[in-house]
Amino acid sequence: MSQPFRIGLLGRGTVGGAFATLLADRADDVANVTGLRPEITGVLRRSEGDFPTVLDNADLVVELIGGLEPAREYVLAAMRAGKHVVTANKQLLAEHGEELWAAAREHGVQLRFEAAVGGVVPVVRVLQESLAAAHVERLHGIVNGTTNFILSRMAETGAEYADALAEAQRLGYAEADPTDDVTGKDAAAKMAILARLAFDTPVSLSEVPYEGIEHLTADDLQYARDLGLGLKLIGTAERVDGGLSVRVHPAFLYGAHPLAGINGPFNAVTIESPAITEITLSGPGAGGPQTASAVLGDVVSAMIPPASTPEPSQRLTLVTDVKSSFYLHVEVADEPGVLAQIAQILGLQGVSVKSFVQKGMGGDARLVMVVHPVLESKLFAAVEMIAGLEFVRTRPRAIRVIDEEF
Amino acid sequence: MSQPFRIGLLGRGTVGGAFATLLADRADDVANVTGLRPEITGVLRRSEGDFPTVLDNADLVVELIGGLEPAREYVLAAMRAGKHVVTANKQLLAEHGEELWAAAREHGVQLRFEAAVGGVVPVVRVLQESLAAAHVERLHGIVNGTTNFILSRMAETGAEYADALAEAQRLGYAEADPTDDVTGKDAAAKMAILARLAFDTPVSLSEVPYEGIEHLTADDLQYARDLGLGLKLIGTAERVDGGLSVRVHPAFLYGAHPLAGINGPFNAVTIESPAITEITLSGPGAGGPQTASAVLGDVVSAMIPPASTPEPSQRLTLVTDVKSSFYLHVEVADEPGVLAQIAQILGLQGVSVKSFVQKGMGGDARLVMVVHPVLESKLFAAVEMIAGLEFVRTRPRAIRVIDEEF
Repeated sequence: MSQPFRIGLLGRGTVGGAFATLLADRADDVANVTGLRPEITGVLRRSEGDFPTVLDNADLVVELIGGLEPAREYVLAAMRAGKHVVTANKQLLAEHGEELWAAAREHGVQLRFEAAVGGVVPVVRVLQESLAAAHVERLHGIVNGTTNFILSRMAETGAEYADALAEAQRLGYAEADPTDDVTGKDAAAKMAILARLAFDTPVSLSEVPYEGIEHLTADDLQYARDLGLGLKLIGTAERVDGGLSVRVHPAFLYGAHPLAGINGPFNAVTIESPAITEITLSGPGAGGPQTASAVLGDVVSAMIPPASTPEPSQRLTLVTDVKSSFYLHVEVADEPGVLAQIAQILGLQGVSVKSFVQKGMGGDARLVMVVHPVLESKLFAAVEMIAGLEFVRTRPRAIRVIDEEF
Repeated sequence: MSQPFRIGLLGRGTVGGAFATLLADRADDVANVTGLRPEITGVLRRSEGDFPTVLDNADLVVELIGGLEPAREYVLAAMRAGKHVVTANKQLLAEHGEELWAAAREHGVQLRFEAAVGGVVPVVRVLQESLAAAHVERLHGIVNGTTNFILSRMAETGAEYADALAEAQRLGYAEADPTDDVTGKDAAAKMAILARLAFDTPVSLSEVPYEGIEHLTADDLQYARDLGLGLKLIGTAERVDGGLSVRVHPAFLYGAHPLAGINGPFNAVTIESPAITEITLSGPGAGGPQTASAVLGDVVSAMIPPASTPEPSQRLTLVTDVKSSFYLHVEVADEPGVLAQIAQILGLQGVSVKSFVQKGMGGDARLVMVVHPVLESKLFAAVEMIAGLEFVRTRPRAIRVIDEEF
């Protein structure tokens, strides 16, 4: 039986609830990886618990209250008591980051906040660790999933802003009061944090000018398409003339830009640096389960030694014959009965054709088809049999297809 | 003056040379971040140095010899001596990973190997830390930049394999003997490592079936395009019927797949898990400077406490007026002289038009243009002046354009 690792949970709204569920679900795996079994030993919310008791019973505090106070006071108190803290509170970090990071250094504890920026996209970790001493030149981010969903819908359907916002609200991608998202303020807070990490210079929310998407029209999106551009709400932090510019505004992106293809409620960040050219990280933006997953990643990271590769806890059987969809290309003499024989062989092996094209080439014909997922051994057996047919001109070509619907 | 942090460098080929250069260049920044000044205190290569002396004088050993022996022996000896190790040696980890990770755990040292997989794409870190206790369902990777470059060129130019390979060799993206890359063996070693980390089960290179790109033809790429598919060398690790399948082969991808748009000498990995949907990480594949950058990231990570946000070492001026390219949309009465007045205002503010479209709308006209990068204050001043013109029907719309050539 693993020793317990005690977590004090501050706040139990959507994300707090999703975190509690996820933690219960993953506790065995966390115990395998860390040797400690995480459990929530105290919860503080309006109707439940008191902070000193929650703190006393915790090895680590997860702060999901949001807002500035009392979140700031609790996080500081936890670190002063020598506890690690994991928080998803972007506003707190964008306004009081320096004070909190200084407290973490002073008390020798970890203050982790991956969930505060970019949903499950691990951009905080990459900036703090992989790129800790890199010379970052520019960072571009789509750091608000709500606005990216709205703009994607406007582009796809020609809807006006108000209709796309209403759809986002129906689907749970936008809150009843979407102000912080659609004005760009939420993105500005995240950009303040990312700019601080990437450029090693203090940046607070009040220093980040932002512009939202409320004034964009279906026409703007239509023009974007006509010009071969995508329209996104983009956060930018970049060196300019020896200084730093941090800002959020809608922007047209050329189709080849790594962020141009990020659609729906997704986040993505591109980091440019001379030594690495550019890295792009993308994934779902904030949402209860996604944010909870980022919080859990931070909790587990605080429990394990750095760069640890724990002993494998299992030995999954390595499967050698799997189902794949295939593209098949067969060159044959253009004679009667050819297709029937090939179809019969495919049928015998349980290979089912999804799409098919035949092209004439003088006296020969080229058959190109995509087949539904089938055990590879069956497909290769069919290819061997087809290769042996008299009227087949060259060895059939079989290439796997990774089908998005599969 | 910062205390020194002593690095023993094993091997000084392309990557070793690039690492030494990068380290010298970044030493001040590393000292700012870590409080320690990294320096190479010993080098071992065929013509220089002996291992015991290099080891004695090092706090951390960087292994860039490659191959199995003596790399394995040196890495083990370093860890037994209590030194952290950073390595880019995928072959070593794919064949002796369990032994090495066990030694790291036993001796309480870090064994970091981001540079062994995926170039600068921080996939090792994300799997080891962000997703340490996540239930990964599937991982797809483009983990070999050489083959991705060759396939991209075949797709773009219609070139045959041999010609695209020759071009890759000329540009330094393929080695004189490209066997390990083009047969898929290099990718298989990387997939063995990633599968071990993602699925917590031992996987060695010999257990990963692989198929290369040597037999692909320009025709296959042409068909891919006709079918709306991209053709890539894909590594897959996925749960299948309670077991695990790990394999490397060429595969067609639908256009919407996150890896379909990864072109040129790039690497990318998509990780799928129920709690997070999917994360995609992309960046340049192996190359001297990129690999050196990944090695430096690992070295710095070994020097700093986990999740540390060091005190800012500078205070860059926040620049508020920056140059941007803009899209401008003006609705005007369709009268003589209108365009001249607008052009004059733009010229006065130094705004230069890059492209321009005019559409008639009854008695009105809609002017849409994209302008070259200009200080935003100048552009907004021009917009204010244009808005005040008598013949302008609605407030002009100005939206920034992030220009790839800018």
